[in-house]
Amino acid sequence: MSMTALRRLEALPRAESLRLLSSVSLGRLVFTHLALPAIRPVNHAVAGEQVIIRAYLGTAISTAVGDRSGTVVAYEADLIDPDSHLGWSVIIVGRATRLTDRAEAARYREVLRPWVADGADGADGADDIIAIQADMVDGFRLVETAA
Amino acid sequence: MSMTALRRLEALPRAESLRLLSSVSLGRLVFTHLALPAIRPVNHAVAGEQVIIRAYLGTAISTAVGDRSGTVVAYEADLIDPDSHLGWSVIIVGRATRLTDRAEAARYREVLRPWVADGADGADGADDIIAIQADMVDGFRLVETAA
Repeated sequence: MSMTALRRLEALPRAESLRLLSSVSLGRLVFTHLALPAIRPVNHAVAGEQVIIRAYLGTAISTAVGDRSGTVVAYEADLIDPDSHLGWSVIIVGRATRLTDRAEAARYREVLRPWVADGADGADGADDIIAIQADMVDGFRLVETAA
Repeated sequence: MSMTALRRLEALPRAESLRLLSSVSLGRLVFTHLALPAIRPVNHAVAGEQVIIRAYLGTAISTAVGDRSGTVVAYEADLIDPDSHLGWSVIIVGRATRLTDRAEAARYREVLRPWVADGADGADGADDIIAIQADMVDGFRLVETAA
């Protein structure tokens, strides 16, 4: 629509991208489920070069991460104004694995609010703490450009 | 965090999910790129059982959709309060194909704001209109539950 400002993408450095990711608590996990692309909104914490999420056992996410070797996922968070469409988006891609250190997992359970009561996303209340390695970080800002 | 209300997921009917999707203009396209999970925020329109997006030629999205037979993608939009974590999310999964009807594509170009000026997402300004069939619709509300 010609009335609105045009925008351009401005790539963000890795450190700034991770800082923006840590400034919000909600994002979206992207994975493959039954050979189809799947996405679920979740809450997260950022710890160094890792994004930490909580997943209930028996859910699609938990199954996708699977055993110790994990799986490659994407994680995205953004803050884009619904009217101006200005803002930012950060996407990471990397291996997701369960945290097996029980003390470390317990610490993240304190920080990460359960997504639903009783793991009601089809599960029994037990949950995994999943760490996603920020192997690739792709952040950008949508900024106004002179038309 | 125990201070905040617990939530539960409430599944939404298909029609209500599509209505919510059409009530917002931004979402995220999920696809496979170079055998890795990929996600990009885009703006959309909902037309019946289809979600319509605009993709610049030469971008990852455009390449993923490929030729006439298309590819299966997911599309997600949500409106979740960053503090209370209450809100809704709608996910569709289905085949994405280019609209080949030029008049129909031109009509959607009027409705869908270009994502960036000049297709600056690495492309030359020419763009495709892509239609995603809502084969699977998965919508839910996050509502407060009595603790």
